[in-house]
Amino acid sequence: MSIMLQEIAEQPVVLERTIQAERTKYSKLSAALSRRDIDLIVLVARGSSDNASLFGRYLLEITTGIPVSLSAPSVFTLYGASLNFKRALVIGVSQSGEGTDINEVLGSAKRSGAFTLGVTNEAGSTMAGIADETLLIHAGREKSVAATKTYTGQMLHFYMLAAALSQRQIEFERIPHFAAQALQLTSAVEELVGRYVFMENCVVVGRGLNYGNSYELALKLMETCYVVAERFSSADFFHGPLAIVERRFPVIMFGPAGVTRASNVELLERLQELHADSLSITNDPEIATRSARVLSMPVEIDEFLSPIPFIIPAQLFAGMLAREKGLDADAPRSLSKVTKTI
Amino acid sequence: MSIMLQEIAEQPVVLERTIQAERTKYSKLSAALSRRDIDLIVLVARGSSDNASLFGRYLLEITTGIPVSLSAPSVFTLYGASLNFKRALVIGVSQSGEGTDINEVLGSAKRSGAFTLGVTNEAGSTMAGIADETLLIHAGREKSVAATKTYTGQMLHFYMLAAALSQRQIEFERIPHFAAQALQLTSAVEELVGRYVFMENCVVVGRGLNYGNSYELALKLMETCYVVAERFSSADFFHGPLAIVERRFPVIMFGPAGVTRASNVELLERLQELHADSLSITNDPEIATRSARVLSMPVEIDEFLSPIPFIIPAQLFAGMLAREKGLDADAPRSLSKVTKTI
Repeated sequence: MSIMLQEIAEQPVVLERTIQAERTKYSKLSAALSRRDIDLIVLVARGSSDNASLFGRYLLEITTGIPVSLSAPSVFTLYGASLNFKRALVIGVSQSGEGTDINEVLGSAKRSGAFTLGVTNEAGSTMAGIADETLLIHAGREKSVAATKTYTGQMLHFYMLAAALSQRQIEFERIPHFAAQALQLTSAVEELVGRYVFMENCVVVGRGLNYGNSYELALKLMETCYVVAERFSSADFFHGPLAIVERRFPVIMFGPAGVTRASNVELLERLQELHADSLSITNDPEIATRSARVLSMPVEIDEFLSPIPFIIPAQLFAGMLAREKGLDADAPRSLSKVTKTI
Repeated sequence: MSIMLQEIAEQPVVLERTIQAERTKYSKLSAALSRRDIDLIVLVARGSSDNASLFGRYLLEITTGIPVSLSAPSVFTLYGASLNFKRALVIGVSQSGEGTDINEVLGSAKRSGAFTLGVTNEAGSTMAGIADETLLIHAGREKSVAATKTYTGQMLHFYMLAAALSQRQIEFERIPHFAAQALQLTSAVEELVGRYVFMENCVVVGRGLNYGNSYELALKLMETCYVVAERFSSADFFHGPLAIVERRFPVIMFGPAGVTRASNVELLERLQELHADSLSITNDPEIATRSARVLSMPVEIDEFLSPIPFIIPAQLFAGMLAREKGLDADAPRSLSKVTKTI
């Protein structure tokens, strides 16, 4: 079994351990942040961490009402700009804590008066040395190049942060159990992947809180299976990209029951007319009916808590498809684990 | 000739007309905005307008130092959130001015105290009725489903806005001339496209101010040529997607001389090792040398003013490749001109 598949299976334990180890930090953080006039949250990340941040962006705006900006590091590193962050909370997100440009933006934000947080799996990293407060993922070392347990660990921290910054009751304690339930799809995924072994390209769609997951599955498919995988929200898909869909074109959807359901159903209707090959990760009966293939998630998972459990069958899909294609998911060609962009 | 190719050719005239018709609005706007304490700019758009906004995001942060957020409309329309926009400038960008969700976000922002702008080609549109001030593109009706002249018209408005909001001298008056120079590549593009007629997928890269162009060319290739086209910054490309590149994999690059040159050269070096099939739109000698094929832009075009002229050969490439493939660029399958997302 690849290290990637082993690390996917560790996620319920990692999530539980992270909740237990980190939750006390958040009461302190909540108090510190309530003394500041925060009117902007900035997330700084690349790769899978950026996909987790894309989720975090929706979650934080929805729960706190504070606008969120996903940072463009080159504004600082290449163009030398200095932004007005005096009322901003700036959060660096990096598995290794060693992304050069991410740390440069975080340092620059701190100097310009922002309160800074680091979300990382490495307590001794450069990022931990820069940030005012470090929120740790307790994943143990992540050995596979393809990030899985640190991705969901980062997402969990966004839930905990949303709970600390808002009045909303967020039941993030339920997530490790949901993650364990999702892992029960392992054999279903195993049966499914053979069908996709010659897939050369596909589109992954998700919307709202699951939009980041569409980026993450597409990235996993690119790095571990060498599939040219596009990612769109089901809304943006109608603005042009739908034209690439022809008979049997594969579309993979994150389709939880809930607020994003209607637009996902509308897209599936169009995909049916176009005879596309749809695969949905869903707990909604209508989405299931309208999809050619389904990975069925438990109905008790609310859309608000769906992103972490819903990415798990998708991670399994990428890891097992890589194996089926005879590829080494842990060591994709051309890639290294830590990428130090300038 | 397709309407798309005709509309591409109209761009120098449209840009010049827009400068002449709109520039006086900006002095008034500059005065109005200087009386407000703006510490956030929010851009709201979908499709090609969202790609123009991605450019606008870099331009406005670099020139004004004000953080920019690209809005996620579903936060408002699906999740019913209300964000704190009291010190925000919120800008809706829509060719037709009729994007339902865009207008809903703009209206919500206005009610919550934001100053709102609309950038549109339609003076009588719903958007123009909502925004505090409307900035018009004087493109005449855009008939092709594939947006071209309204995309560059939107970008031009971001330059004019950057000039109004910052102390920086921005020579946007030079852009129509650069656009006319770019059109001189028409026959070079015509000679080139035959080689790509069987291309099924590709990656488009650009960085910084040209990052939005990579999204826009990818969208044009998807909607008019049915090519599965990925888009990445040359920085993000190293975080995973590089694994999809195999011998002869096509990569199209926006490679102006200037601050993004070093990371583009680094990427091209890797692509050479992987025997990828690179095509660069560039005015930099080293990028040209390291690319398998080149569309040469005038050296006098500074990176800061490059995004509008550099997208023009890319638009020509998509329009002419569609023709070479026997497709109707003006009426892509499955699409309509105005998309009213909820």
